[in-house]
Amino acid sequence: MEIWETLNRELALDMSPFLKVESHTVKLPDGQIINDWPWLESPSFVNIAAITQDEEFLCFRQVKYGVGGQTLAPAGGYIVPGEQPMAAAKRELLEETGYESYHWENMGEFVVDGNRGNGVAHFFLAREVYQVLEPDADDLETQELLKLSRAELEAAVARGAFKVLPWQAIMAMTLLRW
Amino acid sequence: MEIWETLNRELALDMSPFLKVESHTVKLPDGQIINDWPWLESPSFVNIAAITQDEEFLCFRQVKYGVGGQTLAPAGGYIVPGEQPMAAAKRELLEETGYESYHWENMGEFVVDGNRGNGVAHFFLAREVYQVLEPDADDLETQELLKLSRAELEAAVARGAFKVLPWQAIMAMTLLRW
Repeated sequence: MEIWETLNRELALDMSPFLKVESHTVKLPDGQIINDWPWLESPSFVNIAAITQDEEFLCFRQVKYGVGGQTLAPAGGYIVPGEQPMAAAKRELLEETGYESYHWENMGEFVVDGNRGNGVAHFFLAREVYQVLEPDADDLETQELLKLSRAELEAAVARGAFKVLPWQAIMAMTLLRW
Repeated sequence: MEIWETLNRELALDMSPFLKVESHTVKLPDGQIINDWPWLESPSFVNIAAITQDEEFLCFRQVKYGVGGQTLAPAGGYIVPGEQPMAAAKRELLEETGYESYHWENMGEFVVDGNRGNGVAHFFLAREVYQVLEPDADDLETQELLKLSRAELEAAVARGAFKVLPWQAIMAMTLLRW
């Protein structure tokens, strides 16, 4: 199995810093050439599954524009240019929840769209988190911090209460490791 | 918690049928107005976790452009306009693997990007699948059909061998239900 070759990339739309769209000319292994393959450049992001010293799961209830209503959400956010994913995870957890941890696990990285890129999701598990500050997120969304038991998290995942794809992914992965 | 209001939407880029980009004017609950919120319109898609009558998991090894190399992958594909997600799931499973099932479960739907849309992932679990045809996918990717034991699927999920976000999500969700 051979990879597809990128023969050319042209900028089709620039809505920096959140989105650039490129049009790629792509050569398939059988020689077929596709001239207008859409490709999305978006900031990569982290999500953090945080379990407290009391075995409670930290998450938010918030409104998201892409959902058009309320959803449960883990801590997370875009990676700043030049920042390592783990550093971004520690920063976002502290900013959004006021919690820190000595026990971090990298749960892997996953390209958002297998055809068109659109950034990479980096997932981390922080165990035995403890509060050091009040939350100080500068996010646009208002949000309410919740603590769920393992049984409550299982029920939330089963009913799809984390309505955004990367959040459902990290929640299901967390239940496999908890 | 109030939802954000969409005051205006303008087409910023048209790469139909796979991608349209809009620029939204959005009003936040505190009255703040954002004039150039990027929004992605992409086809929604299905993925199917398929477990055979012998308790083996059907998946593919394939090359994906967004991965830049090989990855494991479940059956799946874009929903055709007007098609119901369940119908798309049955069609894609049959086309890509030649298998059918009498035992389908809807595992939920998740917006790909909580900020910018980019389509909805619909996940299905098909149990006791059985072969009725040879595979006949018209996909651009060459792919090899694999059968994994539950232990092999657990190992693949733990090491991130499904390298695309929705695929890791449905795999982890499947292990929670298997």
